[in-house]
Amino acid sequence: MPSRPGPVSINPGRIHQALTSYQLAMALKGAIELEVFTHIAAGATTADTIAPLCHGTEKGVRVLCDYLTVHGFLTKVKGSYGLAPDTAALLDKNSPSYMGSVAEFFTHPAMVSKYRDVAALVRNGGATDHTLAPNDNVWVEFARYMAPMFALPASIAATYVTRSGEPAKVLDVAAGHGLFGIHVALHNPAAEIIFQDWENVLQVACENAAKMGITGRFGTIPGSAFDVDFGTGYDVALLPNFLHHFDFTTNVTLLKKVRAALKHGGLAAVIEFVPNEDRVSPPDGALFAMRMLGTTPSGDAYTFAEIDRMLREAGFGASESHSLAPAHQHLVLARNR
Amino acid sequence: MPSRPGPVSINPGRIHQALTSYQLAMALKGAIELEVFTHIAAGATTADTIAPLCHGTEKGVRVLCDYLTVHGFLTKVKGSYGLAPDTAALLDKNSPSYMGSVAEFFTHPAMVSKYRDVAALVRNGGATDHTLAPNDNVWVEFARYMAPMFALPASIAATYVTRSGEPAKVLDVAAGHGLFGIHVALHNPAAEIIFQDWENVLQVACENAAKMGITGRFGTIPGSAFDVDFGTGYDVALLPNFLHHFDFTTNVTLLKKVRAALKHGGLAAVIEFVPNEDRVSPPDGALFAMRMLGTTPSGDAYTFAEIDRMLREAGFGASESHSLAPAHQHLVLARNR
Repeated sequence: MPSRPGPVSINPGRIHQALTSYQLAMALKGAIELEVFTHIAAGATTADTIAPLCHGTEKGVRVLCDYLTVHGFLTKVKGSYGLAPDTAALLDKNSPSYMGSVAEFFTHPAMVSKYRDVAALVRNGGATDHTLAPNDNVWVEFARYMAPMFALPASIAATYVTRSGEPAKVLDVAAGHGLFGIHVALHNPAAEIIFQDWENVLQVACENAAKMGITGRFGTIPGSAFDVDFGTGYDVALLPNFLHHFDFTTNVTLLKKVRAALKHGGLAAVIEFVPNEDRVSPPDGALFAMRMLGTTPSGDAYTFAEIDRMLREAGFGASESHSLAPAHQHLVLARNR
Repeated sequence: MPSRPGPVSINPGRIHQALTSYQLAMALKGAIELEVFTHIAAGATTADTIAPLCHGTEKGVRVLCDYLTVHGFLTKVKGSYGLAPDTAALLDKNSPSYMGSVAEFFTHPAMVSKYRDVAALVRNGGATDHTLAPNDNVWVEFARYMAPMFALPASIAATYVTRSGEPAKVLDVAAGHGLFGIHVALHNPAAEIIFQDWENVLQVACENAAKMGITGRFGTIPGSAFDVDFGTGYDVALLPNFLHHFDFTTNVTLLKKVRAALKHGGLAAVIEFVPNEDRVSPPDGALFAMRMLGTTPSGDAYTFAEIDRMLREAGFGASESHSLAPAHQHLVLARNR
């Protein structure tokens, strides 16, 4: 068997892996659906013991678990699988911070199909097939599936916007699942929350509010944030994950309306994925711009400087930014002068 | 603005990124289609200069390039993008090793849709909607789009299977694009290649053979490898990327047929993605099992021990394995005793 050294060249593996990375999204979703992480946490750590628990084949479970091990979501020692710290905390159904339901939203066929033609998104500067139609059912699904992802940032943000025990009237703009407002109410027993969103989405916020025990301390304003009357006299206006759907000018218009609803000295609290000025760090903030390119006509991931400028143009004072780490979002606060 | 530390918890970013990783596949495909790598290599390194060259919007190009920078396929310094070593070598159209066409196959809607329901794949132990129908057009597309990916391993493998100048009759089983046989012919001017594959796929192999200048030194056997008469008297039988489509027993049957076509002392040359015994390293070999779970009823990524056992059960002598690095495949050689 004659042998000669091959030519020096470049390993195409990384490009190959990236071009097939839809397999990762769907494999992780499949593992959540099969409760593989839950079974492993409960002590079934080999393909042959996991398989009957999820009505899977041993081969299928082995291929799936090996694949997730290569990607670092599982460990494998002598044929025995274990959980990485994040999958143990977030994907085991018996963990209090289980958030497996987010897979339903992230890998929803409607979401996946938005990236069918990224060249067209780039040519267009945004999505044509977008998700901002009034009462679009995708927002009900978002509110239901994604809520677990926002418990953490909401619980941290809540500590910044009111002092526990001080009465506060709080507007939760485009409240969605309602978690940002709910956590303010949980943190501060003297807070009253007004959830605003489309009617069908508000049902989810109200269910969550009732479930989390803030009954009697919330109201609702159904309709589009751009059209409804917010009322006045708010101490705080929460804007959680809303500005990224729109262009700069639209956001200034909305923020002026929000400012008019706030008391003098009232606080606007913007929760966003905020990339650094370089727009390529930190990863979660930077990658979020692609999510907006694919799903909104003119949304973006805004830098702190851009959000600060929006707030100033709407008449607010200087803003300050707080990381909500370990959640991957930021809270930007500005006062109504 | 009252401030308190948030609860200690786990960053969900990695799970979040994995569940949206279809965006990476499609963004990389979009960038190849827009020739972003080619434009950057040619000196257009900012969003505003790249945009007109690909009829894109500046915003769309910026979001795409930032996204690819976070994933390491581009660099960004003071707003100016550059290419990573692999994208420079493999995704710039003016590079001799350009392989952008592989994106068409990897992100083909038919391929992506195979991973729609990974839980079902795991339950089934393989695909139901598979790609092995006779003359399936997917293999013509595969042969056309994927050829650039196999030039490197084929050129390295060729140096192991014959000595330049020694006459050799070489059977290329399920030849596809034909590159493995073609590179043997390029390495050894005294080699004659017989390409076997379905008739529609053979057209691609013949086109490539003519294009690469081995006219007059090849023949064809159209039809399924399991059904056709290979003939006899071969010095070498190439089995490039074929065994992974089938189960162990089917492969032993095929290898017996291949052995019957070889001279005594003739060489079987199996080219495969070969994971280590742990099945979770190296990444390219290990991840390949998921590709087979999604696209074949009972295929797999086989370890060297498994391939060696298949070859022995088919009557071959002890086999030896050669890495085709930097390509991410292995060559397994065994003699007909």
